[in-house]
Amino acid sequence: MTESHRLADLTWPEVRDRAAGGAAVAVPVGSTEQHGYHLPLCTDVVLPEQLALAAAESLDLVVAPPIAYGYRSRPLSGGGERFPGTISVSGRTLMALLEDVLVGLARSGFSRLVVLNWHYENSNFVYEAAWLAHERARSDALRVMVVEAAFSELSDQVMTTLFGDEFPGWDVEHAAVLETSLMLHLRPDLVRFERAVDDEAARHPSYDVVPPPSDFIPESGALWKATRASAEKGAAAWPEIVARVSGALKAELGLASAADVLVP
Amino acid sequence: MTESHRLADLTWPEVRDRAAGGAAVAVPVGSTEQHGYHLPLCTDVVLPEQLALAAAESLDLVVAPPIAYGYRSRPLSGGGERFPGTISVSGRTLMALLEDVLVGLARSGFSRLVVLNWHYENSNFVYEAAWLAHERARSDALRVMVVEAAFSELSDQVMTTLFGDEFPGWDVEHAAVLETSLMLHLRPDLVRFERAVDDEAARHPSYDVVPPPSDFIPESGALWKATRASAEKGAAAWPEIVARVSGALKAELGLASAADVLVP
Amino acid sequence: MTESHRLADLTWPEVRDRAAGGAAVAVPVGSTEQHGYHLPLCTDVVLPEQLALAAAESLDLVVAPPIAYGYRSRPLSGGGERFPGTISVSGRTLMALLEDVLVGLARSGFSRLVVLNWHYENSNFVYEAAWLAHERARSDALRVMVVEAAFSELSDQVMTTLFGDEFPGWDVEHAAVLETSLMLHLRPDLVRFERAVDDEAARHPSYDVVPPPSDFIPESGALWKATRASAEKGAAAWPEIVARVSGALKAELGLASAADVLVP
Amino acid sequence: MTESHRLADLTWPEVRDRAAGGAAVAVPVGSTEQHGYHLPLCTDVVLPEQLALAAAESLDLVVAPPIAYGYRSRPLSGGGERFPGTISVSGRTLMALLEDVLVGLARSGFSRLVVLNWHYENSNFVYEAAWLAHERARSDALRVMVVEAAFSELSDQVMTTLFGDEFPGWDVEHAAVLETSLMLHLRPDLVRFERAVDDEAARHPSYDVVPPPSDFIPESGALWKATRASAEKGAAAWPEIVARVSGALKAELGLASAADVLVP
Amino acid sequence: MTESHRLADLTWPEVRDRAAGGAAVAVPVGSTEQHGYHLPLCTDVVLPEQLALAAAESLDLVVAPPIAYGYRSRPLSGGGERFPGTISVSGRTLMALLEDVLVGLARSGFSRLVVLNWHYENSNFVYEAAWLAHERARSDALRVMVVEAAFSELSDQVMTTLFGDEFPGWDVEHAAVLETSLMLHLRPDLVRFERAVDDEAARHPSYDVVPPPSDFIPESGALWKATRASAEKGAAAWPEIVARVSGALKAELGLASAADVLVP
Amino acid sequence: MTESHRLADLTWPEVRDRAAGGAAVAVPVGSTEQHGYHLPLCTDVVLPEQLALAAAESLDLVVAPPIAYGYRSRPLSGGGERFPGTISVSGRTLMALLEDVLVGLARSGFSRLVVLNWHYENSNFVYEAAWLAHERARSDALRVMVVEAAFSELSDQVMTTLFGDEFPGWDVEHAAVLETSLMLHLRPDLVRFERAVDDEAARHPSYDVVPPPSDFIPESGALWKATRASAEKGAAAWPEIVARVSGALKAELGLASAADVLVP
Repeated sequence: MTESHRLADLTWPEVRDRAAGGAAVAVPVGSTEQHGYHLPLCTDVVLPEQLALAAAESLDLVVAPPIAYGYRSRPLSGGGERFPGTISVSGRTLMALLEDVLVGLARSGFSRLVVLNWHYENSNFVYEAAWLAHERARSDALRVMVVEAAFSELSDQVMTTLFGDEFPGWDVEHAAVLETSLMLHLRPDLVRFERAVDDEAARHPSYDVVPPPSDFIPESGALWKATRASAEKGAAAWPEIVARVSGALKAELGLASAADVLVP
Repeated sequence: MTESHRLADLTWPEVRDRAAGGAAVAVPVGSTEQHGYHLPLCTDVVLPEQLALAAAESLDLVVAPPIAYGYRSRPLSGGGERFPGTISVSGRTLMALLEDVLVGLARSGFSRLVVLNWHYENSNFVYEAAWLAHERARSDALRVMVVEAAFSELSDQVMTTLFGDEFPGWDVEHAAVLETSLMLHLRPDLVRFERAVDDEAARHPSYDVVPPPSDFIPESGALWKATRASAEKGAAAWPEIVARVSGALKAELGLASAADVLVP
Repeated sequence: MTESHRLADLTWPEVRDRAAGGAAVAVPVGSTEQHGYHLPLCTDVVLPEQLALAAAESLDLVVAPPIAYGYRSRPLSGGGERFPGTISVSGRTLMALLEDVLVGLARSGFSRLVVLNWHYENSNFVYEAAWLAHERARSDALRVMVVEAAFSELSDQVMTTLFGDEFPGWDVEHAAVLETSLMLHLRPDLVRFERAVDDEAARHPSYDVVPPPSDFIPESGALWKATRASAEKGAAAWPEIVARVSGALKAELGLASAADVLVP
Repeated sequence: MTESHRLADLTWPEVRDRAAGGAAVAVPVGSTEQHGYHLPLCTDVVLPEQLALAAAESLDLVVAPPIAYGYRSRPLSGGGERFPGTISVSGRTLMALLEDVLVGLARSGFSRLVVLNWHYENSNFVYEAAWLAHERARSDALRVMVVEAAFSELSDQVMTTLFGDEFPGWDVEHAAVLETSLMLHLRPDLVRFERAVDDEAARHPSYDVVPPPSDFIPESGALWKATRASAEKGAAAWPEIVARVSGALKAELGLASAADVLVP
Repeated sequence: MTESHRLADLTWPEVRDRAAGGAAVAVPVGSTEQHGYHLPLCTDVVLPEQLALAAAESLDLVVAPPIAYGYRSRPLSGGGERFPGTISVSGRTLMALLEDVLVGLARSGFSRLVVLNWHYENSNFVYEAAWLAHERARSDALRVMVVEAAFSELSDQVMTTLFGDEFPGWDVEHAAVLETSLMLHLRPDLVRFERAVDDEAARHPSYDVVPPPSDFIPESGALWKATRASAEKGAAAWPEIVARVSGALKAELGLASAADVLVP
Repeated sequence: MTESHRLADLTWPEVRDRAAGGAAVAVPVGSTEQHGYHLPLCTDVVLPEQLALAAAESLDLVVAPPIAYGYRSRPLSGGGERFPGTISVSGRTLMALLEDVLVGLARSGFSRLVVLNWHYENSNFVYEAAWLAHERARSDALRVMVVEAAFSELSDQVMTTLFGDEFPGWDVEHAAVLETSLMLHLRPDLVRFERAVDDEAARHPSYDVVPPPSDFIPESGALWKATRASAEKGAAAWPEIVARVSGALKAELGLASAADVLVP
């Protein structure tokens, strides 16, 4: 049996050995959040977990169970809390959970931790959790890498493939071209692409309002033109996203490559 | 495409419709915890999630993303915190997380919630979370069913199949006969049965001590005789566990059967 | 004046000396909770405090002021929150209180602490408090023994004396045979035995529901047949309970006997 | 049997009837704190509980179990945390505990609650707890009276009896003339008066310092001249303290007198 | 005396009248954080408070006392916690503080609240505080506008004035061209411009690491070329920033203009 | 440029140098609270900040940004929460904020911290914050001085100047003679003295009630005779208050005088 890259699938002696061998461990952090008419609620969980697993193909990396419930969806970046199926936790809860998980991973012997976040609204909360965990673990050797937005830098070539010359900004990339394309590439079984629509909010200001005005929220929950997505675009973007994140992990944490680790 | 019973796989309009149609929603709660030399860390997550999915075959029930990180493993029921791979959260964190999730499900329109716990150490914490969520939701219609131990009542016939005449008590059923058998039945790909051992702690008192004396903890992490497990035993016990839990949900929550709901 | 075993009655130099001499200290944890028509609200406080004081007759043990307010009464084990006089605290509050008290006792010089709980619903919360206190105290010498259910193991002889051949299970032993008998034995002045009734809930399932269905709760608040209790039964059970707990404390904490300590 | 004024000694139907009849309920709040060489740690618990019980002789008042663990002893008012036997809780914990207890009493049907504090350091924390409980209970009928210092106003005559013409100020009345005299009057069995000393701190400034300078703390823990106390002084002061507090409760809460309530 | 726009300078009847008249109230949120060799720690407080006061010149707006202590400085956006003078609070504390302040303003009668944040690291925390305050205030009329980054949109003309054709991105705009220019324009008395340097971190990746690698942090604490700042650039940018924020407040909250309000 | 005594106005190298040179740092703590018809809400912030700045004239002391939002105004000492403009935080929030600020100051290199509180209701909360910060900082060198009431001791001469022979007690000194006189002396621009009235509550008992009876609260919010105040009285009292606090800081913290520090 090939050993899984998922921590959850390992036995404790296997974890002990991976940690002792210097493996890093990544915690995917996402959300359970509406993603339009066509994408499943788990989109923000599937993508960082797949990303971590893909990185683990080439690096000495283990992937912890993802955090599936994220911070409150915000109207301007995720449609907001009014959509059924958007199941959020408070900032306090998200921080407490991730802090405890990171401390637990350090206690298990891992000294290189990675927080791999996909849900924009988790920003800062996941950083604070990393900070608090590091403070609590009181280990000089511990390093926590916090990747708050895995896809924020893409090559011009991939950007053109994805958006042509009509890039609307990352702030409306929710259930839109990139996410839909990646899901079509990675988990087409979960996409109801025939229901995808092009949508946008009537207003998309640079500030926010609580409670949200209705015209901040597109009816479908998709923040831009989902119909422009395709599996081919996903296939074009994914390797670059994987390579960039893998490269960053390798550079920052000095990770061995998987080949060196797993070959007997 | 047959609609999934997993909430995570649905789109928000599907969730809206299920909730409006009167479906209940179950939150499996488990742990990431050592389960001996032979079972994966995810054992306590796989079992309640599979149980909920099995119940959803016959009932109008949706299964929310499981809570994979549970309360601290205790030496006498789960081997304790010293095993690498046991990644726990504090009682406070677990309660906050589950409370927020339950409130979010109520906000999404569900009025019948089920907490389906498999990890013994989560007891009381999950009840308190349900209590706090109910108080916070301020909805007279909301009911939260809390199943803290799904397997505590089995028929004499199944007990004999599982244990013969040597039942050691549920308190040492951790990575032992029942859990191993169920995993062999449900997810044999995750079991390293060839590594299973018969083990037990040198002492197993009715009280606990912090920090735990070493002789409270069996070396393997399995609390009893794992080698006595078999896929056949799992196949014998599982339908009864599913039937008992399904029956309880139906009786207590007045759930429609799945057939009535999903047939057009 | 014979020195009291109650910490509260000592002066600070006496505490200093007892701690320096190696005494352990026990914190009785109970509840303020309905106990049927015939037992006082303090039943769960009287019993663990009397138990600790009885153990202190033979062991080098001091008894701290009991924690009189426990975690929420649950319908299936204590009748629940609907009864006037049931005054509960949240799980968070109970943990914070006990954690602080244990840390304070360690700061006072005690290195062997005992949590002696009688109220079933406090389970896990008192363990977590012990765990957090141990972590916070940062003392390698500190040991905290957590006795969550002092009466869970009784000899066959005592069980027969108490229940004949009709033992209904500990889960309904609330304001019933054992508690009533012990109170008749220890504090008959607080028992209105003439008001005792035999009662039981219409349903007593293995799961719980929030808010509780009415038929989970017996009208009197006593969960079984209180009229079968007697002072004689209490007198039969009490010495065994005291002996078992005393033996456990002595064995686990290596306590000196009281005679060695207090004789000049 | 004469019905007790202690809530803890009542059965739930008795609580129900007292609450329905309009009784108020008092929560004594104290500390477990050093009180010099001669007074027990429970001094701050005994006094407010006795005070409440004395008030209940003449008023329709029930006395809840006292809160025995108070906020951290401060060097200038209670000797501070360095004395063994001083077992304190954090401000957060004290507030959470008292808030929960007050909410529980309101839930039990009482609409007039009294916080009767004796430990100076609990000031403000007990007020905040009352405020939070009132906010949470959301009952317009609920009133919470907060007596933070029961003895702060005494007649000139009693002051002269207690202190002659040498009153040092209430800030050093800790284990000194008033408290010792009251304990000699009420609970002489708990006083080791032969060990009482006259003491005072080398410095007693109007500000505080953390950690406390040693010269803020008298060696004995008594902040002034304990030897000047006597049972006679206690007997002179006590009725006035009881009368003042009883009068305040009656006036503020419109309580019926006990005679009207309890006579059949 | 001309009435101040500062809430702190008003009397309570003045506040009552302003709230009754429909005024909005803004809470400036900043930080006490290093800003290079040349800018004072209060830069992030001065700017949003001045901005709010400038908006109040033309709108019916009151400015509450600013929150001067912000969330932890992050190395890549503010230099991080290693600089003396950077005095931060945790995310939890910042949220609790702002939540309480917003609830207090609503209790005072204001129904239109504005959070005006300048410190990038406060993002999401201030939104969560607004959300929690809105939930707690339980007022349908209450609206909270959250401006997390007041300067994120500037005209091309101003951008060219500020940066020429070398705009490095907002992420390094800390103690650099914009902030320095604005401070030179608004509070030249607080700027030591002669000490300004051009600086940048050796690395500025899109992810973060805890603890921060030294090469993430420029030695001076200024993240880019501070010497390019000038009072003239500040004078060019400021009116546009004021106008944009004022316009957003007016549009979103329907605020009357100050002239209509204050003229007798 | 003369270096400011305000921490907020310094650059980080200046803070580094002041801390390394042994300076203490003071955190003024006040409130945003009604002060009658004639004093601004910021009265409790202006006074301790001015006091700290005055002390810094003669001592090696830096003044941190004041905490402008204090604990809930209490009816008997500050008029209570019903006055518009009284913007309070909970006890928990105040403690968390001050704790974090003190820890941040210690992290910045200061080992002598001063909490300078003017708002009576902050008592005990600020002490607890100091205690928690000291515990968390884990530095043996750290000392935190807590001045909870800067003006509680004045000479007979000043008392006579202020009150003649009619001193009503400090408990009603809110927006009354002392505070009004000091504000007239220090910040006459913020005083509407022509609106000052003599007022008092109909009742002013030694206990408190939640919710507050109306007759505990004077209509104006001033608790005594504000019209008796004058700038001259303020000028008489201020130097003594400054001298007493400065003397205490110097004595307790061993501070160098400013002259020794700042002269080149």
